Amino acid sequence: MSWTLTAADLPDLARGATLLGTGGGGDPYIGRMLVERVLGDRGITILDPDEIADDLFVIPTAQMGAPTVMIEKIPAGTEPTLALRTLEEHLGRTADATMPIECGGINSMIPLVVAAETGLPVVDADGMGRAFPELSMETFAVYGVHGSPLALAGERGERVIIDTGDDDRQMEWLARGITIRLGGVGHIAEYAMTGADVRRTAIPRTLSMALELGRAIRLARERKTSPFDAIAETLSTTLYSHLRELFVGKVSDVERRTTEGFAKGRAVISPLDPASGDTFELQFQNENLIALRNGACVAIVPDLICVVDEETAEPITTEGLRYGQRVRVLGISTPDMMRTPEALAAFGPGAFGLSEEFVPVEHVDRADVPA
Amino acid sequence: MSWTLTAADLPDLARGATLLGTGGGGDPYIGRMLVERVLGDRGITILDPDEIADDLFVIPTAQMGAPTVMIEKIPAGTEPTLALRTLEEHLGRTADATMPIECGGINSMIPLVVAAETGLPVVDADGMGRAFPELSMETFAVYGVHGSPLALAGERGERVIIDTGDDDRQMEWLARGITIRLGGVGHIAEYAMTGADVRRTAIPRTLSMALELGRAIRLARERKTSPFDAIAETLSTTLYSHLRELFVGKVSDVERRTTEGFAKGRAVISPLDPASGDTFELQFQNENLIALRNGACVAIVPDLICVVDEETAEPITTEGLRYGQRVRVLGISTPDMMRTPEALAAFGPGAFGLSEEFVPVEHVDRADVPA
Repeated sequence: MSWTLTAADLPDLARGATLLGTGGGGDPYIGRMLVERVLGDRGITILDPDEIADDLFVIPTAQMGAPTVMIEKIPAGTEPTLALRTLEEHLGRTADATMPIECGGINSMIPLVVAAETGLPVVDADGMGRAFPELSMETFAVYGVHGSPLALAGERGERVIIDTGDDDRQMEWLARGITIRLGGVGHIAEYAMTGADVRRTAIPRTLSMALELGRAIRLARERKTSPFDAIAETLSTTLYSHLRELFVGKVSDVERRTTEGFAKGRAVISPLDPASGDTFELQFQNENLIALRNGACVAIVPDLICVVDEETAEPITTEGLRYGQRVRVLGISTPDMMRTPEALAAFGPGAFGLSEEFVPVEHVDRADVPA
Repeated sequence: MSWTLTAADLPDLARGATLLGTGGGGDPYIGRMLVERVLGDRGITILDPDEIADDLFVIPTAQMGAPTVMIEKIPAGTEPTLALRTLEEHLGRTADATMPIECGGINSMIPLVVAAETGLPVVDADGMGRAFPELSMETFAVYGVHGSPLALAGERGERVIIDTGDDDRQMEWLARGITIRLGGVGHIAEYAMTGADVRRTAIPRTLSMALELGRAIRLARERKTSPFDAIAETLSTTLYSHLRELFVGKVSDVERRTTEGFAKGRAVISPLDPASGDTFELQFQNENLIALRNGACVAIVPDLICVVDEETAEPITTEGLRYGQRVRVLGISTPDMMRTPEALAAFGPGAFGLSEEFVPVEHVDRADVPA
């Protein structure tokens, strides 16, 4: 069902989108400020993907860049709409709606900025079902809708159009080069598609899922009930039905570097009881890619690996990790359409240079994990 | 007067364009092969800039990249026309002619490749009057015609459009980023303008000058007369009227590195008579930027600094410099429109990070130079 999103929803959406950012995706709180500034007391129409017309013309919008840069370089807010208008002009066709390409992190908010500025509705779906570091890591592309032509806008009004045909990796490579030369952040419109394409290639209702997750965490805190139970209950009615606690501990080491336009690194989390002897390590490229417990993989991309505050369940991004933080690490299963062989080729472990095979988080052997 | 260029002219044009490349500009012999392959026994119409209609629509074409890469990566030949077509499509207007943006080096040839493929005529003018390493170093830009929108094509059919408004340096910066990510070479169409713009902003008859220089050198060799006298005589009837011999010697040291998409370095030339104690050094960024004799500047960009074979006057590019070569270094004055304060701001010494002031080669104090 279609519904109306207002400024009052944004704090919950930001919290849920940070969780789905799995450590990366950029800070949605910055995006939230951008939406609030333009939206005022109006509402944004959110369209259910099952209800849109087959020929609805949808142009998704997003920001690209290293999250570590986004924090220091707050966009003017007009760039994503400039990217959309640039692509419309190039295609000779105006959009009927926009949509996220990535429901995790700041890219949950960018289409809302566009909607608030233009009055366009937003389709409740995306192409990552979480956050990923590269523009080619999209169910859209996996199921036949390609990113080209892509329009990219910079903060000084720069406009770039990139067309690499069906080669979405080359599109990502060239757009990343432009983004680096724009200082680390670019705004994009790409993966233009019809309503029929949305139903065939997008992960449905991920924007509303992010909102519901953020709301469930807040309500549990207000009611002094477990926010972890609230997360599990919310997920149980979605395509992300399995939740597992992977580890509880204290952040004891974080290595992070911004390189080639990405934030790459690893974090070590030590057990609360040092005598247990357990070890736990996360590796990330913008987002958390793999969780190793006592050296064994207990969750791996594209499943979600989320670090949250041990008590409040507030999601923590990789750039928010600090020595001594007490955290809980959650593993969440992704929808089946993100786990097909074609999908894993685009954004499974091998796409990140990991040698481990994908094993669904709900199937990982749990012998070494306490109940 | 307009005239017809045929394949028989290409060897002379390549030689003259290499001289005007002032050490850089890419190898026109590769461009010559590309033209020959497409042209066959047909001719290309070369339009005199004084005779074209005010509303003739001209789209210049070129290759960008580090000359050291161009040698290893020969283009398919269809990319420059793809760049032109991409810009035509973007502008919604078809070109009546193409034109060089750079008469030195391979970019003397690229518009001929386009002409041979499309049947378009070529305007006998350019915006550098030599070779320069950056797309923003154009008399076009200095006198008010900007490079945006620029279309860029890659060897795998990639198409990119860059629009930075009046900011040609930002255009260069972004296009360079794409070129690097395409492996070091890109083909471009930019600085679209009218016939009236050509007369106002371009350096006239530089394509025919390159051809005449190459021809004069060849004929002098055939007639066993001095090719250096032939060069001087040819230049005397052009806007490049001053020729000075800066040094004669042997190449004794060359430092060269390809960095940030450019070939940068320096060459030391030792006197033929070591007892003279003279020193001579060239510094280059793709092209020769400054000539220092006994530590004093004797020629500096934008004047031409050309290294040629000591006997045959065959021009030698920076990548062609070899230990022990006997060479003659020539300084050639550039036209007045390349020496105005606005022009020097765009491509004078300061634009290359040199602290020396521009002094016209014909005015340099010659006390230390033997007659």
